[in-house]
Amino acid sequence: MEKKGILIIGAGGVSRVATTKCAMNIDTFEKITLASRTIKRCDSIAMDIKSRLGVEIQTAQVDADNVEQLVELIKELNPKVVLNVALPYQDLTIMDACTKCKVDYVDTANYEHPDEAKFEYKEQWARDEQFKEAGIKALLGSGFDPGVTGVFCAYAQQNLFDEINYIDIMDCNAGDHGYPFATNFNPEINLREVSANGRYWEDGKWIETKPLEIRVDHDYPEVGVKPSYLLYHEELESLSKNIKGLKRIRFFMTFGDSYIQHMNCLQNVGMLGIEPVMHKGVEIIPIEFLTTLLPDPASLGPRTVGKTNIGCIIEGLKDGKKKKVYIYNVCDHQECYKETGAQAVSYTTGVPAMIGTKMLYKGIWDGKGVFNIEEFDAKPFMDELMTQGLPWKILELE
Amino acid sequence: MEKKGILIIGAGGVSRVATTKCAMNIDTFEKITLASRTIKRCDSIAMDIKSRLGVEIQTAQVDADNVEQLVELIKELNPKVVLNVALPYQDLTIMDACTKCKVDYVDTANYEHPDEAKFEYKEQWARDEQFKEAGIKALLGSGFDPGVTGVFCAYAQQNLFDEINYIDIMDCNAGDHGYPFATNFNPEINLREVSANGRYWEDGKWIETKPLEIRVDHDYPEVGVKPSYLLYHEELESLSKNIKGLKRIRFFMTFGDSYIQHMNCLQNVGMLGIEPVMHKGVEIIPIEFLTTLLPDPASLGPRTVGKTNIGCIIEGLKDGKKKKVYIYNVCDHQECYKETGAQAVSYTTGVPAMIGTKMLYKGIWDGKGVFNIEEFDAKPFMDELMTQGLPWKILELE
Repeated sequence: MEKKGILIIGAGGVSRVATTKCAMNIDTFEKITLASRTIKRCDSIAMDIKSRLGVEIQTAQVDADNVEQLVELIKELNPKVVLNVALPYQDLTIMDACTKCKVDYVDTANYEHPDEAKFEYKEQWARDEQFKEAGIKALLGSGFDPGVTGVFCAYAQQNLFDEINYIDIMDCNAGDHGYPFATNFNPEINLREVSANGRYWEDGKWIETKPLEIRVDHDYPEVGVKPSYLLYHEELESLSKNIKGLKRIRFFMTFGDSYIQHMNCLQNVGMLGIEPVMHKGVEIIPIEFLTTLLPDPASLGPRTVGKTNIGCIIEGLKDGKKKKVYIYNVCDHQECYKETGAQAVSYTTGVPAMIGTKMLYKGIWDGKGVFNIEEFDAKPFMDELMTQGLPWKILELE
Repeated sequence: MEKKGILIIGAGGVSRVATTKCAMNIDTFEKITLASRTIKRCDSIAMDIKSRLGVEIQTAQVDADNVEQLVELIKELNPKVVLNVALPYQDLTIMDACTKCKVDYVDTANYEHPDEAKFEYKEQWARDEQFKEAGIKALLGSGFDPGVTGVFCAYAQQNLFDEINYIDIMDCNAGDHGYPFATNFNPEINLREVSANGRYWEDGKWIETKPLEIRVDHDYPEVGVKPSYLLYHEELESLSKNIKGLKRIRFFMTFGDSYIQHMNCLQNVGMLGIEPVMHKGVEIIPIEFLTTLLPDPASLGPRTVGKTNIGCIIEGLKDGKKKKVYIYNVCDHQECYKETGAQAVSYTTGVPAMIGTKMLYKGIWDGKGVFNIEEFDAKPFMDELMTQGLPWKILELE
C-alpha cells in the first residue's frame, strides 16, 4: 500500500503551530494525524484547527518512549513522513521506529539524555547507517535555531559567497510578558542552558567560556540594541563541519539585565539546584519547585507583546572581495498568537518544522541517511519561509 | 524563702551571649539557670561557659509556650528575675508565668503573633495592671534596638537636652559573611520585616511608606557611607510616647544593594510567599523552603568580619539653642565571636539583656508595672555599657 499523509508526534506549543501550518498546507500533506501520550491535548489542538481552518486532524494516543507502540502506530497509519515535535528525550525511540517502518523522519532539536543535557548530535548521527540501510532519510533540527539558521548559512554558501569565514548567529527575543521573571519554555531546560558554560568554534577548536562571560550589545533590525550573550547552541556542531572554509562560528542570545539578575540570585540561593534537598522530611529538587512557582510558559502566549529577530551575520569572500551579510527574520508575538494560538518562540520553531516535512514529503529534498538541514539545497526552503509566515531579509553590511 | 539568682529562657545566639555575660557578672547574679525546650542546647552553652569562664550554669527543660510548665519551673527555682531570650512568640506566656509567681521579667523584643507580625506593644502593655497587682515589674525590649537605642534617647533627654525634637535611629551592620546571600537571623522574620511597608512618626501621626521607599546614604563613624532604608521598628512606638516634645522619629537600617536585589528577585518569583503551594502532591510554604536552602544564621559567626554601628542622631534645644548629637556604639564581629562564640548581631542584643537584668536584680531600676527601657534613669545603664563590651561615643554635630 502506498504511503500517504504525515504523523506528527507531540502536542505542546510547537506542535500546535506545526500542526496548524500543516493543516494550512493540507493540499500537500493529504492526511494529518497528531499523536501524543495524552490524546486530550491532541484533541484540543485538532478542535482549534477545525474551527480556525475547517481542516480535519486525526488524533491518536502513543507513548513516544516506547518503540513498539510507535512502530504499531506508524504501521497502522503508513505515513510518508513522521514529524517529531515531542520532547528531545524521545528523538532516538522515534528514529528507531522510523527505520523499522522505513518512513522518513524530521525533528527540531537534538537528542538529550534526560539526566544530562549534552546538546550533541552524536547519537543521532550514529544512526546514519541504519537510515541508509532502510532506504530512508532523517532531517535533523528543522526548527528555527537549529533549522532556519542552518538554511540561512547554506543559502549564503550556495548563492552569495565563494567562501564563508565567520558566522555569528544572533537570537533576539524582545517579547515582554509583563512578569518580573518567567521563561519562554520549560524553565528547567531554559535555566540549565543559560547557566551552563558557553562555547564557540574557532580555527578547528572549541573554546569554552564561563556562563554569560561574553556579552555584546547588538543592534537587531526592527528591534533595537539588546544585550546578547555567547552561549553554546547545537547548530554550531553541524555547521562547523558542513560550512567549508569556516574560521569561526558563534551563537548569541539576548537576555535582559533583569532576567540575568534573577537567574544569578536564584543560583546564589541554590534555587537552580538539581540535587534533592531534605525539607521537613520530604526530598525537594529546588529547580523543580521553582518551575512550580513560575508562570506556565504556555500561559505567556496571550500576554506577550513585541518581536523576535533571529538571523545570521555571515562574512567571507565573493569574487576575491570581502563580503558581509545579515540574513534575518522578524516575528511579532501577537500576530503569531492570533494566527496559531501560540507566541513567537513556538511559532518560529513550528513553521520550519512544517516546511522541512514538506521538503521531504514532496521529494524536493532527497537522499538516504541522516542529514542536517544545511546539507540540502536552501533555495526551496527559503521560498517557503517567505510565504508561510517567516519572511526574511538580507542586509549587505559595510 | 528569699528569691535568688536568675532564670534565662531560650538557647539561641542571643542567649549564648546573654548567659556568657551573666556568667561574667556571677558576683551580681549569684546563681544562673538556663532553660529551653531542648535542654541539649542549654547544656552546650553551659559547657562552653564552663570552659571559657569556669562558671557553673544550671540547665533545665521547659516549653515556653506552656504557662503551667513555666510556673512550675519558676516556683522550683525561685529566681529574682526571669530573662526571656526565647522567641518573641513566647513573651506573653512567660509574662503571665511571672505575674503568677511574682517574679520580675525582662525581654528583648516585643510580642509577635506567630501568624502575623504586628511589631506592637499593645498586648504587653495591657499586662501593666497585672504586674502592678503582683507588685513586680517588667522591663520590655532590653536588647540593642529596642533597648540601647532607648537608653541613648533617655540619656539625651535626662542629661543633654531641654527638649528633643528629632530622632533618627541608624542601624548599620557592615559585616561580611562571604555568602552572596544570607540573613543574620531567622530568614523568615528578617525577610518579612524588610519586605513590609515602612512607617515613621511625625507630628503625632504615623506615616506609611512603601517597602524600602526611603533611602539615605549615611556616613557611619568607623564604618563609612552605607545605603540605609527607612523601616518600621518597634522602639518607635514607645519612644514616640515617652520622649516629650518630639516632632519626628524614624528608624533606618543598612542593606547592601546585593541583599536588596536578592530579596526583590526572591519576592518576584514567589519565594517569600507564606501561603502553601502544591508541589508534586506536597504542600510547601515557599519562604520555609528558602530558609532550608539558606545558610543557618548560627553558622555565620565564625566567618563574619567587619563592624556594626548602631546609634541615635538626636536634635533638639539646650539653653534655648539648637543642638544635635550622635550617640553610637561600634562593635566588631570577630571580637564578639572570640569572646562569646556569637557574632555582633547576637552580641549587641545579648549584652544589654544582661545589663537590663542587672538593673532590676540590683534594685537600681525599681517600680511596679510594665516599663519600656527609656522610662528609667539611663546613667547607670550607660555606665555598664562602657565596661561590659558596648562602649559608646557622643559626637556633637554641626
